[in-house]
Amino acid sequence: MVDQSVFISIEGPEGAGKTSLINALAPELRQNLKRPVLTTREPGGNPIAEGIRNMLAADTSVNMDARTEALLFAAARRQHLVETILPALAKDEIVLSDRYLDSSLAYQGGGRRLGVDDVLALNEFAIDHVLPDLTLYLDLPVEIGLERINQQRQSKIDRLDREKLDFHQRVRETYLSLLERFPDRIVKIDANQPLEQVIQAARVELSKVLEVES
Amino acid sequence: MVDQSVFISIEGPEGAGKTSLINALAPELRQNLKRPVLTTREPGGNPIAEGIRNMLAADTSVNMDARTEALLFAAARRQHLVETILPALAKDEIVLSDRYLDSSLAYQGGGRRLGVDDVLALNEFAIDHVLPDLTLYLDLPVEIGLERINQQRQSKIDRLDREKLDFHQRVRETYLSLLERFPDRIVKIDANQPLEQVIQAARVELSKVLEVES
Repeated sequence: MVDQSVFISIEGPEGAGKTSLINALAPELRQNLKRPVLTTREPGGNPIAEGIRNMLAADTSVNMDARTEALLFAAARRQHLVETILPALAKDEIVLSDRYLDSSLAYQGGGRRLGVDDVLALNEFAIDHVLPDLTLYLDLPVEIGLERINQQRQSKIDRLDREKLDFHQRVRETYLSLLERFPDRIVKIDANQPLEQVIQAARVELSKVLEVES
Repeated sequence: MVDQSVFISIEGPEGAGKTSLINALAPELRQNLKRPVLTTREPGGNPIAEGIRNMLAADTSVNMDARTEALLFAAARRQHLVETILPALAKDEIVLSDRYLDSSLAYQGGGRRLGVDDVLALNEFAIDHVLPDLTLYLDLPVEIGLERINQQRQSKIDRLDREKLDFHQRVRETYLSLLERFPDRIVKIDANQPLEQVIQAARVELSKVLEVES
């Protein structure tokens, strides 16, 4: 039997519209393909990962070392993969994950300057060769992303939000470098346009791996 | 100025007498050397590491993947190193740590069969070249260690204790292989003898790195 599972990760900064895109695409895919579609997000999705999420957001974490943070995200990724993603793929489901490997490469490797290669090596231990079939990177100028966050969000600002603008600039530059490094897996979508056009661009890319009409 | 900091880790199974040994040695060293001695233990010692410790001991962790566990221990190790061990070493203190790198190599690499090399690579990200000057490995036959735990402990049995005998056998075999791999750093002490003799054997080894009379 042919393996029909499809694993798609959505990447990009907060404010780029990852959640809106997933919320639009998932019902379409379910209807068009008549197949189960699992939508999930990192680092949450199971009790252990949620515990890690809470720890990362806690006020006591202001002194958290960057390497500690990278290791915790990798731990959450591993558990999310084993408990949530792999069982769905084993049932030939389509998995749409809000963030995966590339977030660590961009945020910890680039943003926190730990180095993409070292963070990749660490995460290879966590993902054990499970890579997405397709990664949609929603690209947005840093200033526009931060503006959108400030306008849209009702929730209080957390630790990661307090990072400086140059941090987010390094994150974006790292995402763009990953696009060159993994051209067969990662596709850039311009997120600085109306949501409907972002969704349409994503439909075109999905059609290439899912064999559906865009 | 000569670097006079000394970092010593104590390794071995539960029941080998690590805590008793540290409790005996620390006051002696303070008195004989007139220097501050920090005693600490993994994975605890700071709020983040204690959070991880609680997560590892929680009932929800029965489904925890072995790689997740290895990543969490590495995260706790990193934070313990940055918040506790490195500041003490920077003040030229003597640090006695109950467990460090070799515990992950023995328990996750050997016991959980993740492989010593992979777990070492992961932990090199966490420790970033900070190795103990001396590691005292308290060696004990597996059956005797488990007997001691059952006799001595008042606390309830936790998840790691429920592991089977062959798990602990693999842990011991891995510790013994590390002894051959890192002969300049790790010294074996026979823990299957009265505590006073264990302490005396440790004094002899410490005297070699601390230049005090044993």
